[in-house]
Amino acid sequence: MGILDLSSELAIGIDIGGTNTKYGIVNHRGEILDKGDIKTDAYPTIESFIEGLYEAMKPIIDKNSSVGIKGIGMGAPNGNYYTGTIEYAPNLPWRGVIPIAKMVSDKFGIPCTLTNDANAAAMGEMMYGAARGMKDFIMITLGTGVGSGIVANGLMLYGHDGFAGELGHTIVRPGGRKHWSTGAHGSLEAYCSATGIAITAKKLRAENIHSALNEVAEENLDSRAVFELAEKGDETAMEVFRYTGQILGEALANFIMFSSPEAIILFGGVIKAGDYIMKPTKEHMENNLLPIFQNKVKLVFSELKEADAAILGASALAWEA
Amino acid sequence: MGILDLSSELAIGIDIGGTNTKYGIVNHRGEILDKGDIKTDAYPTIESFIEGLYEAMKPIIDKNSSVGIKGIGMGAPNGNYYTGTIEYAPNLPWRGVIPIAKMVSDKFGIPCTLTNDANAAAMGEMMYGAARGMKDFIMITLGTGVGSGIVANGLMLYGHDGFAGELGHTIVRPGGRKHWSTGAHGSLEAYCSATGIAITAKKLRAENIHSALNEVAEENLDSRAVFELAEKGDETAMEVFRYTGQILGEALANFIMFSSPEAIILFGGVIKAGDYIMKPTKEHMENNLLPIFQNKVKLVFSELKEADAAILGASALAWEA
Repeated sequence: MGILDLSSELAIGIDIGGTNTKYGIVNHRGEILDKGDIKTDAYPTIESFIEGLYEAMKPIIDKNSSVGIKGIGMGAPNGNYYTGTIEYAPNLPWRGVIPIAKMVSDKFGIPCTLTNDANAAAMGEMMYGAARGMKDFIMITLGTGVGSGIVANGLMLYGHDGFAGELGHTIVRPGGRKHWSTGAHGSLEAYCSATGIAITAKKLRAENIHSALNEVAEENLDSRAVFELAEKGDETAMEVFRYTGQILGEALANFIMFSSPEAIILFGGVIKAGDYIMKPTKEHMENNLLPIFQNKVKLVFSELKEADAAILGASALAWEA
Repeated sequence: MGILDLSSELAIGIDIGGTNTKYGIVNHRGEILDKGDIKTDAYPTIESFIEGLYEAMKPIIDKNSSVGIKGIGMGAPNGNYYTGTIEYAPNLPWRGVIPIAKMVSDKFGIPCTLTNDANAAAMGEMMYGAARGMKDFIMITLGTGVGSGIVANGLMLYGHDGFAGELGHTIVRPGGRKHWSTGAHGSLEAYCSATGIAITAKKLRAENIHSALNEVAEENLDSRAVFELAEKGDETAMEVFRYTGQILGEALANFIMFSSPEAIILFGGVIKAGDYIMKPTKEHMENNLLPIFQNKVKLVFSELKEADAAILGASALAWEA
């Protein structure tokens, strides 16, 4: 068949979330050739999950196997790159330490590399998105929680234990808001995740009885609802993002003074608020930097389509492996 | 003369401080064969400084030049590794951007590498001290200011601009104590440097009129004086270190969740307080970590003799270059 064209090789990306697991087959240009998903929480045991994933993915693997599949990259909450294990992930159905990378490698007969979901997003951004060509950047995911992936000297920062980049759990307001899950007071995630924004919105609407935020049913009071009212000129809704952006900007300034990145890339549902979140974040980030860092660090939104980013990010791991 | 024995090669370390500049010739085992110093502030221009440094060092360079000198490593405040320039260092007599690495290389005819003083200390610790064999650690220098050097994936973290590791300027108490030089509110340096400890001591002795701290003359109220009274059982003096250690420990927890180091190494005059500073720091560090990081990260004092550390650290740069 002649010489194998390496650039035509493919990678598999798998993103394991609490509700859904998404998978796809990706080429070097970041195009997803085939994709699909299964329900994570339909599988009470890890063995049944691996079996279900294999059955679902077999048709698209068979279809593409003639080209050559370089590897499987997998992103999962609490995924450890060094050990290939998911460790005590509170939002997944399986308890304890799960050697999932080895289980997938064995079942599929394809090498599998694991990392946590935020690191996978950073890999995707470096390979296909806003961080192409960068050697030093920080990815912040603003979703239900706040995750992060840090690249330094061109390498993903895993640290000694493989758990580097838990920036959502750094304390930004000592003695502040209690986190619903960790119990810590004043962590970044408690304020700047979608969950945190909903808490802020509840607090501020109680203090501003004329705000249209008071007309939103409690179960619908999320980042999107606040954004929509900000668009309609509701001052309190805008204040929710100003408050969030101030805390996020202060935290980003601290992160910059740690690793001096070229850029910080924001990703996740919260960034749909656009300038409402970007402007106060940038302002407070700059205000809290030493002069030697000011007006140098790019603060940008992700360039990856959110629906595909998780698969692309996970697949990027396979190229690196 | 036969084959050159590389292990007998020597390196020069130069540490530029606001008052004194120390230099020494160092072998691979971290032994200082010759050393000396000149007064930094006796040289109003950088040209006269380079000339003075050369005249002072020439005898020991000539004496050792038969062995082979691999290079000159230099540590200086605001020293930039990438550009070899000292940039706007507030405590040095020379203004603006000083291309000191090139000036020294040209004058001495020996390649010269520059970094900031805290990074140099980290290099020294990695080459000769408590961080030997480690690929991920953070060095915190607690002196007049608070400096830091970060090693990740076995590499010194310089970041995109060469200024990574300004952890002393991260904000740990938003809206808190104003920094005497940067004007920022609540930075780590404002609390945990020797200068910050003296401020805390003044504040606490005013609130505790029976403390022996009130018998110390204002100009002598430094970290050492507080330590000596803590040793004598003065509760307020102990409280100064508990307060300092709480803030330092909280900050270290945040740093750990950034880069997941194997160890944090504390260095500088403040560590002479021993357990008075170590115990509260460790306690609050552990209390503020996510469980996945708890009881894993070593918190230790530097193993380098303080008088030699700056020269050793700077010299370590020359081996790496």
